[in-house]
Amino acid sequence: MADHVYDATFTDRVVDAMGPKTNPRLRQLMAGFIRHMHDFARENELTVDEWMAAVQMINWAGQMSDSKRNEGQLLCDVIGLESLVDEITYKVAAESDRPTATAILGPFFRADTMARQNGDSIVTGVDDGEMAFMHGQVLDYKTKKPIPGTVVEVWQASTNGLYEQQDPDQVEHNLRGRFTTDDNGRYWFYCLRPTPYPVPGDGPAGKLLELMDRHPYRPAHIHIFATHDGYKPLVTQIFDRKDPYLTDDSVFAVKESLIVDFVPREGDPKASLELNYDVKLMADEPTGQFLAKDAIT
Amino acid sequence: MADHVYDATFTDRVVDAMGPKTNPRLRQLMAGFIRHMHDFARENELTVDEWMAAVQMINWAGQMSDSKRNEGQLLCDVIGLESLVDEITYKVAAESDRPTATAILGPFFRADTMARQNGDSIVTGVDDGEMAFMHGQVLDYKTKKPIPGTVVEVWQASTNGLYEQQDPDQVEHNLRGRFTTDDNGRYWFYCLRPTPYPVPGDGPAGKLLELMDRHPYRPAHIHIFATHDGYKPLVTQIFDRKDPYLTDDSVFAVKESLIVDFVPREGDPKASLELNYDVKLMADEPTGQFLAKDAIT
Repeated sequence: MADHVYDATFTDRVVDAMGPKTNPRLRQLMAGFIRHMHDFARENELTVDEWMAAVQMINWAGQMSDSKRNEGQLLCDVIGLESLVDEITYKVAAESDRPTATAILGPFFRADTMARQNGDSIVTGVDDGEMAFMHGQVLDYKTKKPIPGTVVEVWQASTNGLYEQQDPDQVEHNLRGRFTTDDNGRYWFYCLRPTPYPVPGDGPAGKLLELMDRHPYRPAHIHIFATHDGYKPLVTQIFDRKDPYLTDDSVFAVKESLIVDFVPREGDPKASLELNYDVKLMADEPTGQFLAKDAIT
Repeated sequence: MADHVYDATFTDRVVDAMGPKTNPRLRQLMAGFIRHMHDFARENELTVDEWMAAVQMINWAGQMSDSKRNEGQLLCDVIGLESLVDEITYKVAAESDRPTATAILGPFFRADTMARQNGDSIVTGVDDGEMAFMHGQVLDYKTKKPIPGTVVEVWQASTNGLYEQQDPDQVEHNLRGRFTTDDNGRYWFYCLRPTPYPVPGDGPAGKLLELMDRHPYRPAHIHIFATHDGYKPLVTQIFDRKDPYLTDDSVFAVKESLIVDFVPREGDPKASLELNYDVKLMADEPTGQFLAKDAIT
């Protein structure tokens, strides 16, 4: 077979087809994406069958996704893309390491998380877990002042590895809750010491992990989403230092500063462990960036 | 903001997470894809919001796709990816220009296309189109010998721009048919002179075209899919030389050698135009390539 010279103008033609009314940021992103995808196809001599297998995987992801599950996101997670984008977006936080570092949202957040009172337990009907009392203060990372009225949403998987929306045997909103900090910026509640679990194996992300001969486990973690007007919303996860998958997370989300220690708790019949965790928020600066989300919905 | 240095080991870590049992071709493709996606994200400082907008678009594509519609494919088409992969896969054909050149399958092929007899019309209930008599011979491009028993599937949009599966007002299998060449390798039937049409605007591909300020039109064409044991399956499209979008196809599929001329036809009450089009197939050589399609289903 003779050496093949691809039409050298093809990619430029596709990029240049964008019209003058294209949003400049979208033009930049689409041009970059098109060039990388075309280079990827040429460098690897991607075949029609291989490309079509990827299309089927993408369609499958959409078909499995709904308000409670986001398989498209999970596909990105297993190739490290959400963690990378998280690092890029919040790089100031990562550099200074003064506000709490961020981590990926993951696909199991629910926008309609149920409000609870400080002191409540988020655990119902789990009898094989270790109970922990988690508490802390939300602070402005610069002024060190507490931020009363911060909404702190937390969610975690159960001991069987499933979030409530994946598991018909858990009550609605089990192991998640929306708390609000008090006048001293404090929050407190009971939860489980988290346990490691595999990402779902019945969809395209699980299939991709299997094809890549990788284990599906995430190290034990608790998700936190903290919001207050005037502060950058903080999406993060905290990881149990004792977890065996800490250096080998299937979605590459662990950061050193997010590793925490559960300690024994005395004299509380409701919990044998305690976790004190302060959250440090950063005042928000508007970026004027292209709001891609608004453009497509 | 200080210059940011991204974790230089991150992408290698994600690539190297693939285990030893990964299929070598899949390893090559995933490594290339991961590196390009990470480079794309870093080069453009992709934000979480922008990435999430893309995830939503991918999920939306899957949700709109079914056995009659493939929106994931259409998303690839509008960024030229199917045409490029087609060129890569069938580059021998493109180089030699002796077998018929290929073009993209597009999202409106149906695997269950209805068998018809040579001489039949594929047109039902369309009264504002120009009828054409299309005929030709299927040949081995090297030996020049006819190939009897070749299955020739054709499909085209109606004058309203819709394929039958998009249009509840068209009868099932309208404007498509599966013909078989006779002892001389000949096929013949009646169809419409094709007309240009826009790709669907109600899904993510249409939205992406709008965001890129591009028109959605495809130049007038007829799809052909010709198969015979021992020959490479030919997927192509032929384009009407008179079409205004010939140099500006929204999915970048036009090739010079696939442009055809409809000529006046005399003395046939069923058609005022004629198109003589021979199809040249290439004997198949097994490639031993990774069958990605088999791996995920």
